Amino acid sequence: EANTNVRFSLPAVCVVWQTAMIILFGVFIRYDEESDPHWLEHKKLNNISSDIENDFYFRYPSFQDVHVMIFVGFGFLMTFLKRYSFGGVGFNFLIAAFGLQWALLMQGWFHSLDYTDGKIKIGIENLINADFCVAGCLIAYGALLGKVSPVQLMVLTLFGITLFAVEEYIILNLIHARDAGGSMVIHTFGAYYGLSISWMLYRPNLDQSSRLQGSVYHSDVFATIGTLFLWMFWPSFNSAITDHGDGQHRAVINTYLALASTVLTTVAMSSLFQKHGKLDMVHVQNSTLAGGVAVGTAAEFMLMPYGSLIVGFCCGVISTLGYIYISPFLEKYMKVQDTCGVHNLHAMPGVIGGIVGAITAAAASESVYGHEGLVKTFDFEGAFEKMEPTTQGGHQAGGLCVALIFGIGGGMIVGAILRLPIWGDPADDNCFDDETYWEVPEDEESIPPVLQYNNHMRNKDIADTNFSMEPYPRTRS
Amino acid sequence: EANTNVRFSLPAVCVVWQTAMIILFGVFIRYDEESDPHWLEHKKLNNISSDIENDFYFRYPSFQDVHVMIFVGFGFLMTFLKRYSFGGVGFNFLIAAFGLQWALLMQGWFHSLDYTDGKIKIGIENLINADFCVAGCLIAYGALLGKVSPVQLMVLTLFGITLFAVEEYIILNLIHARDAGGSMVIHTFGAYYGLSISWMLYRPNLDQSSRLQGSVYHSDVFATIGTLFLWMFWPSFNSAITDHGDGQHRAVINTYLALASTVLTTVAMSSLFQKHGKLDMVHVQNSTLAGGVAVGTAAEFMLMPYGSLIVGFCCGVISTLGYIYISPFLEKYMKVQDTCGVHNLHAMPGVIGGIVGAITAAAASESVYGHEGLVKTFDFEGAFEKMEPTTQGGHQAGGLCVALIFGIGGGMIVGAILRLPIWGDPADDNCFDDETYWEVPEDEESIPPVLQYNNHMRNKDIADTNFSMEPYPRTRS
Amino acid sequence: EANTNVRFSLPAVCVVWQTAMIILFGVFIRYDEESDPHWLEHKKLNNISSDIENDFYFRYPSFQDVHVMIFVGFGFLMTFLKRYSFGGVGFNFLIAAFGLQWALLMQGWFHSLDYTDGKIKIGIENLINADFCVAGCLIAYGALLGKVSPVQLMVLTLFGITLFAVEEYIILNLIHARDAGGSMVIHTFGAYYGLSISWMLYRPNLDQSSRLQGSVYHSDVFATIGTLFLWMFWPSFNSAITDHGDGQHRAVINTYLALASTVLTTVAMSSLFQKHGKLDMVHVQNSTLAGGVAVGTAAEFMLMPYGSLIVGFCCGVISTLGYIYISPFLEKYMKVQDTCGVHNLHAMPGVIGGIVGAITAAAASESVYGHEGLVKTFDFEGAFEKMEPTTQGGHQAGGLCVALIFGIGGGMIVGAILRLPIWGDPADDNCFDDETYWEVPEDEESIPPVLQYNNHMRNKDIADTNFSMEPYPRTRS
Repeated sequence: EANTNVRFSLPAVCVVWQTAMIILFGVFIRYDEESDPHWLEHKKLNNISSDIENDFYFRYPSFQDVHVMIFVGFGFLMTFLKRYSFGGVGFNFLIAAFGLQWALLMQGWFHSLDYTDGKIKIGIENLINADFCVAGCLIAYGALLGKVSPVQLMVLTLFGITLFAVEEYIILNLIHARDAGGSMVIHTFGAYYGLSISWMLYRPNLDQSSRLQGSVYHSDVFATIGTLFLWMFWPSFNSAITDHGDGQHRAVINTYLALASTVLTTVAMSSLFQKHGKLDMVHVQNSTLAGGVAVGTAAEFMLMPYGSLIVGFCCGVISTLGYIYISPFLEKYMKVQDTCGVHNLHAMPGVIGGIVGAITAAAASESVYGHEGLVKTFDFEGAFEKMEPTTQGGHQAGGLCVALIFGIGGGMIVGAILRLPIWGDPADDNCFDDETYWEVPEDEESIPPVLQYNNHMRNKDIADTNFSMEPYPRTRS
Repeated sequence: EANTNVRFSLPAVCVVWQTAMIILFGVFIRYDEESDPHWLEHKKLNNISSDIENDFYFRYPSFQDVHVMIFVGFGFLMTFLKRYSFGGVGFNFLIAAFGLQWALLMQGWFHSLDYTDGKIKIGIENLINADFCVAGCLIAYGALLGKVSPVQLMVLTLFGITLFAVEEYIILNLIHARDAGGSMVIHTFGAYYGLSISWMLYRPNLDQSSRLQGSVYHSDVFATIGTLFLWMFWPSFNSAITDHGDGQHRAVINTYLALASTVLTTVAMSSLFQKHGKLDMVHVQNSTLAGGVAVGTAAEFMLMPYGSLIVGFCCGVISTLGYIYISPFLEKYMKVQDTCGVHNLHAMPGVIGGIVGAITAAAASESVYGHEGLVKTFDFEGAFEKMEPTTQGGHQAGGLCVALIFGIGGGMIVGAILRLPIWGDPADDNCFDDETYWEVPEDEESIPPVLQYNNHMRNKDIADTNFSMEPYPRTRS
Repeated sequence: EANTNVRFSLPAVCVVWQTAMIILFGVFIRYDEESDPHWLEHKKLNNISSDIENDFYFRYPSFQDVHVMIFVGFGFLMTFLKRYSFGGVGFNFLIAAFGLQWALLMQGWFHSLDYTDGKIKIGIENLINADFCVAGCLIAYGALLGKVSPVQLMVLTLFGITLFAVEEYIILNLIHARDAGGSMVIHTFGAYYGLSISWMLYRPNLDQSSRLQGSVYHSDVFATIGTLFLWMFWPSFNSAITDHGDGQHRAVINTYLALASTVLTTVAMSSLFQKHGKLDMVHVQNSTLAGGVAVGTAAEFMLMPYGSLIVGFCCGVISTLGYIYISPFLEKYMKVQDTCGVHNLHAMPGVIGGIVGAITAAAASESVYGHEGLVKTFDFEGAFEKMEPTTQGGHQAGGLCVALIFGIGGGMIVGAILRLPIWGDPADDNCFDDETYWEVPEDEESIPPVLQYNNHMRNKDIADTNFSMEPYPRTRS
């Protein structure tokens, strides 16, 4: 019998880590020049004519869309299980809220450290990047949904954010790969990180909780809320930190088109490979998003509208077939149990995105981008002033390898840590069950209608509930 | 017994049409000057001082709001049926994703063709217009919800987008009517297009599936998500493509006020015309939106705040009474079966919106708008430089007639095509049932709790599920 | 037996008040210079270089986020009860739609009256403020959820908006306190207004409807939608009307951080104070938002990132302990029945927010803000040109007292009015039941599956439904 009581470990981890965040923020984090009251002086010094030039107005709408993707998108996508909706959306909320604080620090040390005073200066772009960083861990959670304790998730997030920040620094700064929408940095890394952990935590007897592994009608509708908010706001995700002006504009168009194309091939494959041609909600909920993952790297490049459609077309096919054929294979032969199918939604499309990015970068030319456009889009400045697009393509491929190595390697190490018998994870027959970590209300429907009970569920422990006998009075007239 | 198996027709349509889109996009669609890397040079040439002048920043927040209306708004509004939530939100997703691609092409040929190279140049405004175009078809779907196959919906969308683009070109460019929020172009056209198709596809024995025609408690709550996102973002819808500056600003204010007013009269009528004064969720879900439809045309004009309130007031009354009296009349005597009541939500308010637009335009004067304001608001330029407001009012009325003709005429033609017995539409006793086109999970509640079954619903076909005990009686066929 | 029939009173109130709004808007409300077609001339006169300088583009994204908080955020947060979801989201919709119109007038007279022509000139900032004003009344509704009639809610809103506008004018203009996110003006006022009314309407026999006071599994998931949209968009709420540029930027960062911190301590406390360490959805749904309330006043000040985390940390603890210990105490000994626990989510955090604001203001200095920054942030202009930060701190504290007095005093007066036996409020055993004011669909589940009934639920009164007999077999144990 596994001990799933996290009454001391969970509060301890939350309070200690939050206290650490306060101390580290006190030492390190300050407002940047655009969010500081000295902005007025900064404006004069830099001859900025209007407040509207503050980066806030370029990025805030995209930031809020990304924020919705992180909390509602990922959160509700994980509510599909019949009895793990609380855990899906609730633990997503918990680890995202912790992860973004740690991400501000980790990414800040690498990217926003002001060497004159040793402080990290944050603004809207840091908030977006923190949300991005968190996305990697939420993808990993998708592979583990229902099989881990909240304490394990906090550990997964602490290490995940740390690995992410290092990997991102290597890929973007050292290798000088571009990855605006994070096909490599976020999706490939996050998915393989989660899958490796799942492999390390393999549960041979998981079928003992198979009664809870499916969805019910309304939980599938809830999950669709997550799908749609991810789908609709993905253009904001891929454009949130691209260049002002044409960069953001083009990334939106490419993502919008790739996603539209994916929907059609997902539906086609789902219908074609099922008996009687019926559609499967699992595919519609997940594979329709694969195109957004796969144009992440190349969204800001001159992928061309038809190029975006082609990428989306392929990803819809591959991702749906992944759900039908690859996921069962991985579970049976590779011992990788992937609750949400992140291999089909993030891993494969992420790798495709990395490859598409490398090819598109290698094919770039001044005739298409213009000289200034090429320099701006690929950031051929400073130490990389003389870089050629073909070389850039090679660097992109290198970035993809780094993401894979960090994902798989990091996942195996963290998986080993999470195997320690101290984290309060559920037994095989208790997986996918909110009762393990949540007070779950008795369903009205589950109570015999002849019976009236006295609950005050909002105020008292439902275990105290006393049933008296007498008919249930909810008669209508 | 109808054959509803779409295993070959649906994948075939999706793959062939998506392939056609890729080819056509390859031949025709390119980035416009604001989403192309040559933007840097364009800025210099046109003396644009900052990237923030890129149209992207004027319109992207509105675009994302419109996008939410299309996918979550329309999608969830159609989840109200007890067993057609998958079809409501899922097919909405499918046809919107296809429709927007075809709309980019059709509208592009009419409005964004660059005659120097024969290419369509797209930017954020094209994406908004594509979403608008799709809205017309989604409104038509509302009339047909639960009674058609996904293949029929794809056909409906292909023709609907085509008709829309022609109708829009005639109304906006040839007749020079203004219709920022699409009361005529989108709502009137879309609603009558759907109603005509429904009339052509009349099902005399639809009461055979009447057990599925109502809602359940939670499906009504889901539908409210759709209602609210439509209601909240309607100001963005009506202002998304209006003039920069005061045009967008004013359209938001007018729509905000009209919608607020509609809520109060909807509640009043709903309570007044029901026994015991109880409110009906159908009215609250739908009629509260009628004010947004009806200020669509005039939102950018000087309708005045009190004018917006008056329009909203009237539409709340008319739309609610429509649900109570006109819909049953249409079904019984006109043979128009209108599942979502689009006649009350889009058709009547759309026509009212066209009339309000004509009156407001005819009443425009330089004393109210100023000379420059009048020219900019009504686009009195080029061939229409000498147009008078009164004449403009007549042109507005002409635009309304064109929308009606295209909606009714187009719907009858497309309805005749959809009557062919090849589309896999359901039999009368199979309407409003997700089982026809979707793998539907067994409800947890419907399974005797003493019975543990082995489903792995996410991985295996649920048809394979073996029950140890007696069969649950929810067999359908 | 209470008479809950509102068939005449509700329509009468809605129609009369909406008519009054139309007349008052006709007399008083006009577009301001940024939403009027004379904007073109205004631009030239004031040397404004681009339409993007229109305040619309600074505030519209925040406005839409606030709008979502008001209608989806507050609305869905109140759907948690098993059988009051219609009333939660529906009445929220009704009173918000009425309240915002009355708020435009009340706030307009105080803040936007053009003395040259006696008209109120409205623009996007007025719409935001109207939404803010409505929030106060929605908070009050949270305390009363399920226990009042819609007519009472309309009365509550009419008086609530009026009190709010007066209180706001005193606090912001006469006392010259700053309160960008409304910790005092909105949350403290609104919560005590609702709690005082609840105290006046105390129901000693409310346990007669205790069977309906809890949640069911899916209603808790619905409520989480409200939670997340409030949580995600709270940075927009606190920054919506702050200064352009650094003011909005900083308010977003502070709110984002405070909310993240609150999540962790809420989870910690929820787990620590429950048997077996299980989390309670009530806490996750509500207390996670307390940090956003508590940084409302100080969000635009130099609270510093670590300061925001500290405020969030404390509020998560206090709010969660409030649900566990203070709410039962208030109900038992103070006779305050607080359905949603607004005392824990708005009242206590609001007061904390007022205190944090006073301290932060008193501690402000030119070395931190710069001279210009200090003047701009605290608006030390005109009659308050020579004000010192320490004095400002005192004024902030004064503002908090005014909010408390208006909330408690106003609530007692309005509560006395609402005790009149004419409003159609439910009996004690009819509380928390949508059947009282709504047509509620029969649940599919409650109907024997062997029985096919003829409902046309969308068209006919469900009371007409005829059941044949025999019990539904879905017993569990």
